[in-house]
Amino acid sequence: MKLAVMGSGAVGRSVAELAAEYGHTVTALADSTTSVVHADGIDVESVFERKRTDGIVGNGVPEDALESDYDALVEATPTTLGDAQPALDYVQRALERDRDVVLANKGPVAERYGDLRASERESEGTVRFEATVGGAIPVLSTIEDAGPANVTAVRGVLNGTANFVLSRMAADGLAYEHALAEAQDIGVAEADPTFDVDGTDAALKCAIIANVISEREFTLGDVDISGIREIPASALELAQQDGSTVRLVGEVSDGSARVGPRLVDEHGTLAVTGTQNIVQFETTHAGTLNNSGRGAGGPETATAIMRDLHRLDR
Amino acid sequence: MKLAVMGSGAVGRSVAELAAEYGHTVTALADSTTSVVHADGIDVESVFERKRTDGIVGNGVPEDALESDYDALVEATPTTLGDAQPALDYVQRALERDRDVVLANKGPVAERYGDLRASERESEGTVRFEATVGGAIPVLSTIEDAGPANVTAVRGVLNGTANFVLSRMAADGLAYEHALAEAQDIGVAEADPTFDVDGTDAALKCAIIANVISEREFTLGDVDISGIREIPASALELAQQDGSTVRLVGEVSDGSARVGPRLVDEHGTLAVTGTQNIVQFETTHAGTLNNSGRGAGGPETATAIMRDLHRLDR
Repeated sequence: MKLAVMGSGAVGRSVAELAAEYGHTVTALADSTTSVVHADGIDVESVFERKRTDGIVGNGVPEDALESDYDALVEATPTTLGDAQPALDYVQRALERDRDVVLANKGPVAERYGDLRASERESEGTVRFEATVGGAIPVLSTIEDAGPANVTAVRGVLNGTANFVLSRMAADGLAYEHALAEAQDIGVAEADPTFDVDGTDAALKCAIIANVISEREFTLGDVDISGIREIPASALELAQQDGSTVRLVGEVSDGSARVGPRLVDEHGTLAVTGTQNIVQFETTHAGTLNNSGRGAGGPETATAIMRDLHRLDR
Repeated sequence: MKLAVMGSGAVGRSVAELAAEYGHTVTALADSTTSVVHADGIDVESVFERKRTDGIVGNGVPEDALESDYDALVEATPTTLGDAQPALDYVQRALERDRDVVLANKGPVAERYGDLRASERESEGTVRFEATVGGAIPVLSTIEDAGPANVTAVRGVLNGTANFVLSRMAADGLAYEHALAEAQDIGVAEADPTFDVDGTDAALKCAIIANVISEREFTLGDVDISGIREIPASALELAQQDGSTVRLVGEVSDGSARVGPRLVDEHGTLAVTGTQNIVQFETTHAGTLNNSGRGAGGPETATAIMRDLHRLDR
């Protein structure tokens, strides 16, 4: 397929780098202010070299990428809350042109799901968003395959940064600030870790899961959220004495969604370590399914986009 | 879709019972000697009541089901080795009529993969067989979605009976014979457990995985197999002293396939307990993915068939 990639961060870049291997051609790519369009496929290496040296991906504006000739729009700009712009606008414009859309950006799916689906209904194009939840792990496609009506609950560890911090606190008795600083040192946590440690990122993923498996529309505001900042090292020590540990668990069940620190069996399925993510699906006829793996990362998330493109292509 | 179900065991029965919920109609069902055909859908409850009381599913012969009007043939007769009959014949006759085929029967996929694909190539119909590996767990569809060329190795615990026996030996220091007897008492192991404890069942699944991810054709004879009969309780005790345990692990990598008892981390990903199965996928761009859940059971395996039918329907 011919791809227009909006966003030149880790995910956008990995999509561009992997596309050819999966049989696709990136014919347009944009960052927040510039773009490059080439009907035969952009020269990925030189585009990102230019981004590195000059801070731009090309001489065009993002508008040029949007208006170019492509089969599927890949929305990989940074997630924004509330109106989910400019991503929602990009997506809707693609759908108006009857193009398919694949999102890595959580904003439109978590915050404006009704609008997103309404635009899709009026289009020949289809919207997919596997990459918004769980990185490399098949989460939404697992729900799709089982049939959303057959999935009664979904819970899991959906944020690798928070999980790394909690794992380190438990393993070495570190205080939260110490474990966070370590995570920042090795690039697992950002300088401003709010989005991850306060549970916002996991809550957006829960809103997306809830939108897929429940009847009513969810936004971030519909998710009960508590983060991990206030967890003292002593709480983890106490848990360990009881064969337990603490994980930041997101859960969607019975028409509600919540994210918060939970006691889990120290050696249980949910107690993944480091930046790993895990998702558990409770199903009507197949019991509990567990999928785990790398929940973030450019190439990992790009493979989720490739899976979406493969399903669109069929 | 209109389904002709060949086989009236646990899987065939669950397919018949769940079909309507997934939007399908079972228009024909056969056991080894009889069949029932009804264009508007068979009366599942009365058919299985008749099977219970009279030992037959209807007044017809299996041939009638094969010749009936259906969209997809569900092959759920018992797995046979070598020539994989009568399943292979059933499947080929469906393909000759340009019908789709979904297999729960491992025989044709593990033992006659080349013939199976050759027949599919000459047909308008498509062959799918998710239910042959891992019960409720998405295994072959995970490989399909990732792209078989991107899956460099697959390993896992693929037989719930053997895993139950090993779990019980480790947990309570039981001898093999004692754990097996317990498994037989509660219906987890059959009276003749050979197929499970000698590794044959896991090896058939490895042959199927190898057929999907490698270039050359595999049969059971191409899998190196050792089972769990000879494992003394003392071996599990020794392993435990080292933080390990023993699991019957199947592995496909580097163009070869093998099944045997392996030392694994006692609390590691592969150390699932009881009848659980787990499959690990090593991928080129997405690291390791782990899927676990119920690896057997009528309804569980039927959900895999429903997932195949869903993909055929798209």
